[in-house]
This record gives sequence, structure tokens and C-alpha cells, in this order.
Amino acid sequence: MAEFEVSSIERAAVVGCGVIGAAWASRMLLNGVDVAISDPSDNAEQILTEVLGNAVAAYDDLGLPTDGQGTYRMATSVADAVADAQFIQESVPERPDIKAAVLAEIEAAAPVDTIIGSSTSGIKPSTMQATMTNPERLVVGHPYNPVYLLPVVEVVGGEHTPIEVICQAQGIYAGIGMKPVHVRVEIDAFVGDRLLEAVWREALWLVNDGVATTQEIDDIMTHGFGLRWAQMGLFETYRVAGGAGGFRHFIEQFGPTLEWPWTKLMDTPDFTPELVDTLVEQSDAQSGAHTIRELERTRDQNVVGFLKVLEANNWGAGTTIAEHRKR
Amino acid sequence: MAEFEVSSIERAAVVGCGVIGAAWASRMLLNGVDVAISDPSDNAEQILTEVLGNAVAAYDDLGLPTDGQGTYRMATSVADAVADAQFIQESVPERPDIKAAVLAEIEAAAPVDTIIGSSTSGIKPSTMQATMTNPERLVVGHPYNPVYLLPVVEVVGGEHTPIEVICQAQGIYAGIGMKPVHVRVEIDAFVGDRLLEAVWREALWLVNDGVATTQEIDDIMTHGFGLRWAQMGLFETYRVAGGAGGFRHFIEQFGPTLEWPWTKLMDTPDFTPELVDTLVEQSDAQSGAHTIRELERTRDQNVVGFLKVLEANNWGAGTTIAEHRKR
Repeated sequence: MAEFEVSSIERAAVVGCGVIGAAWASRMLLNGVDVAISDPSDNAEQILTEVLGNAVAAYDDLGLPTDGQGTYRMATSVADAVADAQFIQESVPERPDIKAAVLAEIEAAAPVDTIIGSSTSGIKPSTMQATMTNPERLVVGHPYNPVYLLPVVEVVGGEHTPIEVICQAQGIYAGIGMKPVHVRVEIDAFVGDRLLEAVWREALWLVNDGVATTQEIDDIMTHGFGLRWAQMGLFETYRVAGGAGGFRHFIEQFGPTLEWPWTKLMDTPDFTPELVDTLVEQSDAQSGAHTIRELERTRDQNVVGFLKVLEANNWGAGTTIAEHRKR
Repeated sequence: MAEFEVSSIERAAVVGCGVIGAAWASRMLLNGVDVAISDPSDNAEQILTEVLGNAVAAYDDLGLPTDGQGTYRMATSVADAVADAQFIQESVPERPDIKAAVLAEIEAAAPVDTIIGSSTSGIKPSTMQATMTNPERLVVGHPYNPVYLLPVVEVVGGEHTPIEVICQAQGIYAGIGMKPVHVRVEIDAFVGDRLLEAVWREALWLVNDGVATTQEIDDIMTHGFGLRWAQMGLFETYRVAGGAGGFRHFIEQFGPTLEWPWTKLMDTPDFTPELVDTLVEQSDAQSGAHTIRELERTRDQNVVGFLKVLEANNWGAGTTIAEHRKR
């Protein structure tokens, strides 16, 4: 476990301002960091404004200060955004060629020792480092949306990333209220998306095979194990299930059932037009009564409520909020 | 979707009173149902008392009435427990031979039209029906622990279960405050445990390969996507991620990444003594400072807090609580 010290930065750059980049910028701004934003699209500032509005409402509701905000500016280019940044968060589309081109632009203009965190959820840092001039400055800093509310960020170094850079990046992320988790082994999709992909694949089979609709699958999650995982993870939940016999008892009791041929083979269903139509129709029937903006606000209100409960109980993600509030 | 009417029962039998059976009995008792309990072990009543204590505390905290409780009695045999029951919930160990023997005992003594719900998480109802005299009365009613708090129950019929019985079982479960979800196709492990098993298998590989510890995996869940799934499931979350383009846009953007070779092959790691030791040591380091009873109370306090938030926001599992409160 890499030890790190919480640190504060004053100026950051956000490169790529879609939903994820805008949420990074919002988290930084609400933690007093000035942010220069680079994105070639016409509606980047509009996305930022909308996401920042959601973030301010959430922080108000959570009782976190919103009056000491940093300022943002829309930069004219990547070079303009990163030239004097103390930290750079890259959130451009998930294509290795786009990542490589943008990293080259960043390196051409940024101070040589400024750390670059990449939001990628699937590209290994070593792959991105292969074309970099100063690869030692790159880490993956993979967040979960809404980035301004969910505290976790997976920090992954590549073969050229020294442990000191991992520690510095963790300190910077903690300084904006996050819970950095250092993933020590570089694997595709890191940790969280490995778990998410396994669920996604299995859920697609369930829809494809007509076993359950998107609504039914979501109901089973939100009325069942989802309520567990907002406060205890897989292993702690199963420890409790093992009772006084502890985790060894649990493994002895339930481990062998894993060998039952339950889940589907590794292949995913083909995204035939029929499957896509089924998914879209079921999702519309499930959620179509609400706009995406309404769903985002509902989500944020729910998550804020959960975080307040957890902070009051001094547990889980609530402790991260409490510690950040103290600082 | 099978339509059902919410119904109330006065007398139920709980056969098998481990943690799950005791939590079923607690939910029934707190909803005014008298419960006859059968379990051969010496400590069944002690488990019931402990679990019921947790359940009463949780209902008090949730503002649900605890003064109209049903009464329980420890029956002298399965026959004694089920003789005049209006509904029977079976929660004996997950072995087909034990299930078959207990179902035979139940059938020998219970009224012929009393529905039997099985808590099995992995045995198909048709498999259990194969040795029954009146197989039409059997459904799977698979809950999630803590059963007295988490509302969902997966209701699955076998090849001999008529739709009327499915509907009646759903009505009885709804009558004790639950959210029944009818799983229309009979598959191993039903829906929720399919998803859980996929996560469990992948998480075991991550520990086995030294990528992350149990603590790190749980942190990533509880500080990340776990906070999502307590209120929106997989599909609704991804609908939001797709933005204004909706679910079709999301699929087009992210579907193809599923073909990346991320997750491990379907085989599970061998439960070697080394892997079991690693899991036990990491779990002890993570959670060993708390007793199981402390963890249960913390879990319940957190889940109660979440349910209050969701009820206030009229969303997800909170709507199930609100509707039940009105009745």
C-alpha cells in the first residue's frame, strides 16, 4: 500500500469535457481549484455548466461549502489549458489513437513534472506510456460518475510510473475529497470495471434469453444487493453471512457452489438489431417517463442522502466525506 | 408480468431456522403473522431471538410499527409446524436430498392447498417438484438477507406450478412488505445470484492474482458503484450515462468494448489452502475489529438510513416501504 500525503493544488487542467471531464472540473472547482478546460466541441461549456449546476446543488445539500469555488476558463487549445497546470486530468474518448495524440499535445506544452491522470476505464497505462516522451508522469486515475459525488478513484501506474508519482497523484486526488485506491497490478479494466463488466455480460444474457427485463433486473438490484453494496462490499457482506464462524466458514459453506455451471460462457450475446431494440424498448418502458436531467437529479439526491447517512454512522464513504470536511 | 393482489395471512410456518429462516420469521412476526418454527438444532430459538432483536430495532428506526407483532412458537417437528399453516417458507440447507426429505415431511402434514415457498438460491423448482406429491404448490421465493429489511423476493415457478399459485405467492409476500419479482424462465441461480456469482468469481481472481485485497475491492464497491446500485440498477445507470442520446446511444458507444478480453475465463480459481488463507487473512484485517453482531447492526442502521432517504425521495425500494406503510 503506497502511503501518501494529502496535498492541495491551485491550478489544474481538464482535457476533454464531456460528462466525465465536466464532473472532474466540477469537483476541482468546488474544492477551490482553478481549472483550465480544453475540448474541441461547441457544447463543452454547456455541458460544464449543467454538470456544475448539479454538483453545486449536491454540495449544498450535503452541507459542503460552495462559496470558495475556483474559477474556470475555456482554453483555446490543449497547450493553452495545460501550460501552467499543476495537475492534468485527461478524459478524451476511449480510443488509443486519440489518447496518444492528446497526450503528445499535453507533453508538448505542460511543465515536465506535471502529473497527468487519465480517466480511461480500459486502456493500460503502459500502453499509453509507449508513445510518451516523459512516461513517468502518467497514471490512470479512473473515477466513477458522478465524479463530483462518488469518492473512489482507481490509481494505476504503468511500467514507467515510479511509486513517488503514484503517491503524489493519490495525494492530489485526496485533496479534492476523493478516496484513491492504488491498483498495484496493471490489468485491463483495472478492478471496478472488471466487476461491472462481469455483471453487464450476465445481465445482457438474461435480457437476450428472455429471462428478465431491464426493469426486473434493476428492481432485483435496487431492492436487494444494491442496498448492501452502498455500505459493505462483497467480502464484508459475505463475512457477515458466514456468521460467528467467520470468513473461513463462509468459504467452506459456499465456495463449492461456485463450481456449479451457473453463469454463461464468456462470450457476450451478439448485438443484433433485435437485441438492441429489445434493450432500448425495455429501457424506455422502465425510465422513459423521466428525462436524463431528472434522473441525474434524482440520483444525486439519493446519493447525497446515502452519504449523509454514512457520515452520521461514521462508515464507508461517509468517513471519506467526514475526513475531507475536517481538512 | 403476473398480476397479483396483496393478501394477508394469519398463520405461517418457517421450516429451517438458521439466519435466513430466522429473518423470514422476523419479517412475518413484525407484520402481524403468527409463526410456527421447525428446526432440529438446539440453538434455533437463540438465532431467532437475536435476529428478531435486530429486526425490531430496525423497524423502530424505520418508524414501522413493532407493537402488533405475531407470536411464535418452536414446533416439535416439521409436521407440528405446518399442520395448520396458511403459507410455508422452507429455508433448510442447500442440498437437494435434504430439500426432498423436508418437502416430503411438509407434504405429509400440511393442508393440500398451502403454498410452499423455498428460499433456495440455486436449486430449480422443477428439480424439487420431481419428488413431490402435490408439486403444483411449490414456488421458489428467494430472498436477500437481511430478509426483514431488503424487500426483494424472486418468485420462480417450476414446470408444475400454475400461474395462479405464482400470483398467490406474490400476494402473500407483498402482504409482508416485500417486492416480489416474478422470474418467468426457470434457470439455475435465477436472476440476482447469476449477477452475484459473476462478481464473486471475478473478485476471487483479483485476490488470487494479487491485483487487489478484499478491503480494496470492497472500498471500490462501497465508494463507487455500490452507491449507484442502491437506487438505480445497471440499466438505468447506463441510460443516464448515455445522456440525451438515450440507451441506444449508450449501447452504440459502449457495447463493442464488451468484446475486449477483460474478464477471466469461466473457471474459478481452485480453493487451494493458500487462497483460502489469503482470503481469511485479508478479511480479518479488513473487518476483524468488529464482531459479526456489530457488523449486522451497522449494516441495518445503514440500510434503514438508505430506505428513509429513498422513501423521502419516493424512489426505488423507498416506494415499496411507502406503499406498505399505507396499507
